[in-house]
Amino acid sequence: MAHINENRDALLGRIKRIAGQVGAVERALGGNANCTEVLHLVAAVRGAVNGLLDEIIVEHLEAHVARDGLSPEERQQGAEDLVTIIRRYSK
Amino acid sequence: MAHINENRDALLGRIKRIAGQVGAVERALGGNANCTEVLHLVAAVRGAVNGLLDEIIVEHLEAHVARDGLSPEERQQGAEDLVTIIRRYSK
Amino acid sequence: MAHINENRDALLGRIKRIAGQVGAVERALGGNANCTEVLHLVAAVRGAVNGLLDEIIVEHLEAHVARDGLSPEERQQGAEDLVTIIRRYSK
Amino acid sequence: MAHINENRDALLGRIKRIAGQVGAVERALGGNANCTEVLHLVAAVRGAVNGLLDEIIVEHLEAHVARDGLSPEERQQGAEDLVTIIRRYSK
Repeated sequence: MAHINENRDALLGRIKRIAGQVGAVERALGGNANCTEVLHLVAAVRGAVNGLLDEIIVEHLEAHVARDGLSPEERQQGAEDLVTIIRRYSK
Repeated sequence: MAHINENRDALLGRIKRIAGQVGAVERALGGNANCTEVLHLVAAVRGAVNGLLDEIIVEHLEAHVARDGLSPEERQQGAEDLVTIIRRYSK
Repeated sequence: MAHINENRDALLGRIKRIAGQVGAVERALGGNANCTEVLHLVAAVRGAVNGLLDEIIVEHLEAHVARDGLSPEERQQGAEDLVTIIRRYSK
Repeated sequence: MAHINENRDALLGRIKRIAGQVGAVERALGGNANCTEVLHLVAAVRGAVNGLLDEIIVEHLEAHVARDGLSPEERQQGAEDLVTIIRRYSK
């Protein structure tokens, strides 16, 4: 959990902002926002989530695969985590 | 706002689920979830947001560009909305 | 075929450049290029293809869905073409 | 260059198929293919290139970051290569 601990506050800040953006979409859908506004709000959430996922992937790569002192088994597990994400979510 | 009105409940349902997923990431980061769990939770949010954005794009295309009875100006505006999203967010 | 005709030369120019980039990947793989070079060459092809696809989607939207004078059936067909692409290829 | 050597034939096979697909787009644009065909051909190239890039990223991760026996410097370089690709090309 090292890299999550080190960057917890930064990551929490980003996810809270995303939660706020998602809340804005909810209010827009519940209120009278027009479709174009909803379209842009959702697209902005997508951009923010992509940025967060990239950041967590980069940190996972460094902390669980590249870092000095990891055992071969730890490196393989860290690499497998990333391969699963790459195969499932990147198009 | 036609298509948003028609599909409001379905769209609200989807955004509420996404809000729930984002909440789960927040709790995981605040708690003792390991990095791999956080990685998968954020990747799942990305998948859900992509799906929602696709749906809203498809509805916007049909309601504001293709639908019968729109004025040429309404069609152009509807098309421009989508072009902005395509250019800014699709990579 | 209107928009393809109007923009044929520009589109042909872009696809020829992509063909050249793909040829460079082939030569790199066949020669002694290192992995990092191959990685960047393929990533550059991806960027170019994404840009070309965006352009064709935008033109298709304008020429086959938004343009004045299309019949309702032509608009629906144009919209369905785009919905198929959005659902199949955007993640 | 280890992993590229080991998988050279498979990778060359994939890039040749992509070259063939790109050639098909070129012929379609040069001939009388309709826009919908061109749209699908380009979208298929995008899918194939994404698949190839994922494969090379996964191999690079295993061969240049996770593999046993790499020096700390080699691991850092391998990780930096991937971080550059992730930051530049994943959206």
